[in-house]
Amino acid sequence: MTRTRLEAFSDGVIAILITIMVLELKVPRGTDWQALRPLIPVFLTYVLSFIFLGIYWNNHHHMLHATERINGAILWANLHLLFWLSLVPFATGWMGENHVAPLPTALYGVFLLMAAVAWTILQATIIAHQGPSSKLREAVGGDFKGKISIAAYAAAIPLAFVRPWIAIALYVFVALLWLVPDRRIESKINR
Amino acid sequence: MTRTRLEAFSDGVIAILITIMVLELKVPRGTDWQALRPLIPVFLTYVLSFIFLGIYWNNHHHMLHATERINGAILWANLHLLFWLSLVPFATGWMGENHVAPLPTALYGVFLLMAAVAWTILQATIIAHQGPSSKLREAVGGDFKGKISIAAYAAAIPLAFVRPWIAIALYVFVALLWLVPDRRIESKINR
Amino acid sequence: MTRTRLEAFSDGVIAILITIMVLELKVPRGTDWQALRPLIPVFLTYVLSFIFLGIYWNNHHHMLHATERINGAILWANLHLLFWLSLVPFATGWMGENHVAPLPTALYGVFLLMAAVAWTILQATIIAHQGPSSKLREAVGGDFKGKISIAAYAAAIPLAFVRPWIAIALYVFVALLWLVPDRRIESKINR
Amino acid sequence: MTRTRLEAFSDGVIAILITIMVLELKVPRGTDWQALRPLIPVFLTYVLSFIFLGIYWNNHHHMLHATERINGAILWANLHLLFWLSLVPFATGWMGENHVAPLPTALYGVFLLMAAVAWTILQATIIAHQGPSSKLREAVGGDFKGKISIAAYAAAIPLAFVRPWIAIALYVFVALLWLVPDRRIESKINR
Repeated sequence: MTRTRLEAFSDGVIAILITIMVLELKVPRGTDWQALRPLIPVFLTYVLSFIFLGIYWNNHHHMLHATERINGAILWANLHLLFWLSLVPFATGWMGENHVAPLPTALYGVFLLMAAVAWTILQATIIAHQGPSSKLREAVGGDFKGKISIAAYAAAIPLAFVRPWIAIALYVFVALLWLVPDRRIESKINR
Repeated sequence: MTRTRLEAFSDGVIAILITIMVLELKVPRGTDWQALRPLIPVFLTYVLSFIFLGIYWNNHHHMLHATERINGAILWANLHLLFWLSLVPFATGWMGENHVAPLPTALYGVFLLMAAVAWTILQATIIAHQGPSSKLREAVGGDFKGKISIAAYAAAIPLAFVRPWIAIALYVFVALLWLVPDRRIESKINR
Repeated sequence: MTRTRLEAFSDGVIAILITIMVLELKVPRGTDWQALRPLIPVFLTYVLSFIFLGIYWNNHHHMLHATERINGAILWANLHLLFWLSLVPFATGWMGENHVAPLPTALYGVFLLMAAVAWTILQATIIAHQGPSSKLREAVGGDFKGKISIAAYAAAIPLAFVRPWIAIALYVFVALLWLVPDRRIESKINR
Repeated sequence: MTRTRLEAFSDGVIAILITIMVLELKVPRGTDWQALRPLIPVFLTYVLSFIFLGIYWNNHHHMLHATERINGAILWANLHLLFWLSLVPFATGWMGENHVAPLPTALYGVFLLMAAVAWTILQATIIAHQGPSSKLREAVGGDFKGKISIAAYAAAIPLAFVRPWIAIALYVFVALLWLVPDRRIESKINR
């Protein structure tokens, strides 16, 4: 029961964040192609953030599937993750409206980095609560993808000030890395 | 359990999209009939989009009722559908505020077309996962309504540049076609 | 299962509508009492609409509790109700920001009237689906409160053009009438 | 079943409130550090309000876990709590955008106080409904934390006009007091 409510609340927050980002796509004044053009970078960053939030929702789904019991620490670790995710729409709007300027692009990376760190904390909190025979620990293993993601974000933040497009390329790389749902967990569960 | 969460997340996103569209109905300055008049086209496009999202919610409901198991591909096919639906409020606002100008009307059709394509992909993904004895495949059959809808949207997009009202008529036609819940699936399930 | 999803979707829409109305309470420029004063009528209409949506949520809850099976007609009758409720925040904002001017006050009544009519249709659709031994029909009885509400709204709409405050008084009267949860249904269920 | 729907609705409202607050973080014009600076107080008040709403969600979760049956009075006591919580984003935005001016800081305290009072009423309503062998009453005990919180808010409201930072310090103190989930209830349930 407790897990259900944690899932429902997280689903609610992520669903709202995904749709709130659309509000940054402001209805343009004109009705020709010219009016639509400034929206292209906003649209592209929307696509990127939609994919990131989709990945988090997807993997959150898998992670909690391998979680039987919930305690206060897990609730707060989950809220901490949602906090950083809730800042993604702001960074998305700022980056999109400013044609990928250095500081907004770096800030986008900061929020993604913090969300990835919050994810790692949540994962560790669940594993600690499950004890030595943790199904999730077995599934996560060395957490190769998690470590690479954090390294990529950490590199992207300073690189955004050199060339914003390098940072963007790193974000897209991480998104592609995760786009495949976490088969490690899936395979452990179905076994 | 997994299906429940997929439904809950989709319900959340569709519920938010339906209500976010109301925000396009901006409170007018004056308090007389004159102040209300420019809102009429915005209101009418709101009604149309409300019906479209209602149809998707309704049929999503029926489709998942005929789905027992979920996998990663289905999760992503569903997110892909939600992505195109999430753009409907933007196109609704642009079309409504510009008295059905050609480009906004065509873009509205593009998003409806992409949502219909995403629906077909989601349907095919579920059927593929269910295997040869798919209850959903039997229910969908030749998918007559799905094919007609896609053809109507594809025709409406160029026709919007000739006469926007032809495109609108096609959108209304598709809405009427679907307004009846998918009895094919309903009848198969109740059998 | 089907009923659960109908409830979840309706809960989602009503929860969003209730919170979207708060967005009409726009953060004022100044920081003194003077800055807060124009918000008072907006706040009061927010309270009224919050109570109305709370009543609908509460009674929706009771009504569906007495409903075992759902069909396509019920799904659409429910969406129809949500449609009129979704327009309440717009009318609330318009009425609140214009110090209860006649037309906004009348429009508020129109949306409440349409929502009440949609409620009656939903109730009748459920009863029709339940057949002669309908638990809900027995609980609703002569639907005294429903009929009085519709009559009060119908009277309030023209009276708003005479004296807006008469219309407001009628709205408050209906709210008080319903504030008590529908004990008729509650008592039938618990019997 | 009834409890589930009450939880789902409350989760929905709180999830929306948490994410609606992010909309107050308006995308700045410029792209340098200068553009970001005015957002710092808005961000800090966002963090504070996020924690407050997180605490309410968390404890709401625990409280309802100790609640078996729901009646109309509990539904309305819960809506009353949600009403005051729904005003938190408004006060958060007003306080954050005005660098913690006296009146906005006091109003923030008023809404927190009213929410705390509404919480106490909800708790008492549930206990009254559970009767003499109330599991929740046993868990709550003397409600030490609840009483201290209300006292701190009541002190903070006038003190905000003397020095706003004293009020803020009191709000942070209450947040820290509650940040630990209510172990009293948790321990009673797990016993």
